Amino acid sequence: MFILDSKNKTPLYRQLYQQLRVKILNGEIPPQARLASSRKLSADLKVSRNTVDTAYQQLLAEGYIVGKSRSGYYVETINNVNVSFVPEIAEVETLPEPSDEKIKYDFTYGNLPPDTFPFPKWQSLTNECFRNYKNQLLKYSSLMGELGLRKEIVKYLRVYRDVKCSVDQILITSGTVEALTLACQLLRSDTTAIAMEDPGFRAAYLAFRNQGFRVDPIPLNHHGINVKALHTSIAKAVYVTPSHQFPTGSIMSITRRLRLIEWAYEQNGYIIEDDYSSHLRYDVKPISSLQGLAPEKVIYIGSFSKMLLPSLRVAYMVLPKNLVQKLQGQSDFIACSVPFLIQKPLQLFMQEGYFESHVRKMINHFKKKHKALVCALQENFGDEISISGQNAGIHLLLEIKCSASAQKLIEQAAKAGIAISTSGKSWVHFAPHSYPCILLGFSAIALDDILPAVRLLRKIWSSEK
Amino acid sequence: MFILDSKNKTPLYRQLYQQLRVKILNGEIPPQARLASSRKLSADLKVSRNTVDTAYQQLLAEGYIVGKSRSGYYVETINNVNVSFVPEIAEVETLPEPSDEKIKYDFTYGNLPPDTFPFPKWQSLTNECFRNYKNQLLKYSSLMGELGLRKEIVKYLRVYRDVKCSVDQILITSGTVEALTLACQLLRSDTTAIAMEDPGFRAAYLAFRNQGFRVDPIPLNHHGINVKALHTSIAKAVYVTPSHQFPTGSIMSITRRLRLIEWAYEQNGYIIEDDYSSHLRYDVKPISSLQGLAPEKVIYIGSFSKMLLPSLRVAYMVLPKNLVQKLQGQSDFIACSVPFLIQKPLQLFMQEGYFESHVRKMINHFKKKHKALVCALQENFGDEISISGQNAGIHLLLEIKCSASAQKLIEQAAKAGIAISTSGKSWVHFAPHSYPCILLGFSAIALDDILPAVRLLRKIWSSEK
Repeated sequence: MFILDSKNKTPLYRQLYQQLRVKILNGEIPPQARLASSRKLSADLKVSRNTVDTAYQQLLAEGYIVGKSRSGYYVETINNVNVSFVPEIAEVETLPEPSDEKIKYDFTYGNLPPDTFPFPKWQSLTNECFRNYKNQLLKYSSLMGELGLRKEIVKYLRVYRDVKCSVDQILITSGTVEALTLACQLLRSDTTAIAMEDPGFRAAYLAFRNQGFRVDPIPLNHHGINVKALHTSIAKAVYVTPSHQFPTGSIMSITRRLRLIEWAYEQNGYIIEDDYSSHLRYDVKPISSLQGLAPEKVIYIGSFSKMLLPSLRVAYMVLPKNLVQKLQGQSDFIACSVPFLIQKPLQLFMQEGYFESHVRKMINHFKKKHKALVCALQENFGDEISISGQNAGIHLLLEIKCSASAQKLIEQAAKAGIAISTSGKSWVHFAPHSYPCILLGFSAIALDDILPAVRLLRKIWSSEK
Repeated sequence: MFILDSKNKTPLYRQLYQQLRVKILNGEIPPQARLASSRKLSADLKVSRNTVDTAYQQLLAEGYIVGKSRSGYYVETINNVNVSFVPEIAEVETLPEPSDEKIKYDFTYGNLPPDTFPFPKWQSLTNECFRNYKNQLLKYSSLMGELGLRKEIVKYLRVYRDVKCSVDQILITSGTVEALTLACQLLRSDTTAIAMEDPGFRAAYLAFRNQGFRVDPIPLNHHGINVKALHTSIAKAVYVTPSHQFPTGSIMSITRRLRLIEWAYEQNGYIIEDDYSSHLRYDVKPISSLQGLAPEKVIYIGSFSKMLLPSLRVAYMVLPKNLVQKLQGQSDFIACSVPFLIQKPLQLFMQEGYFESHVRKMINHFKKKHKALVCALQENFGDEISISGQNAGIHLLLEIKCSASAQKLIEQAAKAGIAISTSGKSWVHFAPHSYPCILLGFSAIALDDILPAVRLLRKIWSSEK
């Protein structure tokens, strides 16, 4: 018995094929049975002979039946295992899109406010790609990424970050996590553990763990990571954020940097430098990279997410020359994971000087919000909080002198419409700490909202004293 | 002695900072030395006092010097290690862009010819994103990817690939390699080895190796992978290409599929199904996925590179429900690596029906080229070659009955302007084989070029008989 419905969206041959398949799989049509001839079955079902032939051809190609010359089709002997052969008919669920409506003030980390990005310019550069680079769009791009973009990144890094490298050391990646994953791949033969700053960037911690490495948390003070403690770890690689420690915001001092480099030479190890907020600094000029002091010992990672647009998914890494060779040996002829339609507009944006002026604009934008936030916090909280990580990046770290947990403070804020990233979302803290710590991102919130938002926070949290 | 040049592109303060830094690092200005007051130094150097102050502030922030109140700045005691403190002045190299000019006939694997992609439509959908989705562009998108795109993929997979899944099982990735890397992450706690078909897809082999897994090659015949041989491996995961084995082109029979599923249940293991050429089939209708038979045992991977555009860098995976949970535990709050500006136009392209008609068009396009290639090969080579992998995908595999190595044949072709992917580029072959095997991609070459290209190949290779 077959039930074919010509009104169904599924073609008739396919309905027949599916029903035959189920009957063969569940044994209703037993092994070695001969199928009805297509002439007979088509007459019985009142469908065209072609419909039956197409269904039979499909079953034949997939090995459900075999053809014997002049005798017809026979069912294969199929070991029945527990297969889910019932055709699924469920509709695609319509999950609700997550809503941001309840958020009045957004202190989460990383998103950007409207009007900070030059959309018209980017759009016209994208359209330029469609006009002038059709041929490249039809191809895979090479592992390291577009040469033109890599050249622009080298120029930028030399001038603004004191990074020393050549074009062939640059690898374009689809975000910092891919860069960290590739770093792990390159370090797998050298080490089974990776050390990192405690507290530190959660996504890095996850990337190392997911890559099968043990993660050794190393304490830090306001000069940077404790190199003595690092020496007690077996790790041959250490992940640091020297220009602006994540999340505490401290700058690694030159003394500490040199000790760390000394460690790398002694251990024959590597330093992974995550320059995530790059040259966003508001008091002094941007802090020089660690990479420039020891290019052969540092895997440098930079990203366009903070200064340009998080949704672009472009980061890059600068590899020591020996690791470039290793990478090419491991992954040659694998394509770069960033689309050409993103790489090329970015190259043109940098080449034509828009990136430089955009970064200047963003530094001013964030500097104003940073100042407003620090003032508002000091005015409203006074001695009840201590602020760290000032004068750089897009967040502050608050230690709040109260007995509540950070989680509880964040939940209370959420009830009042204030969104704050939880510790588990962006950073990890291995060592116990006495007061709750809150990471306050100021990239998304509007300048004028900062004071009322902080006042509201003060009001909500005052009950926890 | 400081040499400051106001014509230099580097600001004066930075020139001074850099020179002070070098002198401190190399000991020329010794530890504990007192720096000249900014008033004195600015007068000596004939620069503004602000220039000197800015340089000093920078050195202070980076820990090169310390300030003592009312006494000035003193050099820190810095352990000197082997740092490369010489400022680099080299220009960015101008490597030549790789040129395709010498290629007359392109039989490499994967690239597409012009006029096969609806650029104007894609461009207008991209522009629609800039108009209507600015807010999403300012944010990170969630781990699994855009919900709207995932819905479209579920619908497509149900109708065309017999894949059984819900929206929450779909993960958008920046290509197949990222999907394989994520699969490895998910399987790391279950297995130290991954089995794969021999011969098989080289990028998969590299991905598994780079992720630290041992790769066990398993022989196959024209019904698919040898499940008995698979049982001798300790691997708890196996990578297969059942709808169109890469590179031999065979279809895994239903009997073999069921045995493989049985293996997965017995071993408590997983099958990684790479449906890379998806529903490109020219004789029968597309072969149903293996996933549909055992959704809880199969990690299904699909890609838009072959049917849409390789430079888009979009693939997707369908995860069994328990692995979705595991992934979210491992990587929650990590952003999806595919840019919104790629995900959204793709969603709209599918939603508005363009994808379906584009795929139909591409099947016709490839079908014609496939037929022309098979005919040309049979006419020109006759019994001297055996062709496998017919009637699907975008390549054929040739076994050429001659004594030369595949590498030599490919080199000879290259000299005559015919580009052919080397085995090392796209596929791996572990077991020894008697005749040279050549993978002939037919996606990039124009229909009218096929016959002359094959004639030329015959002429070049005939000397090797």
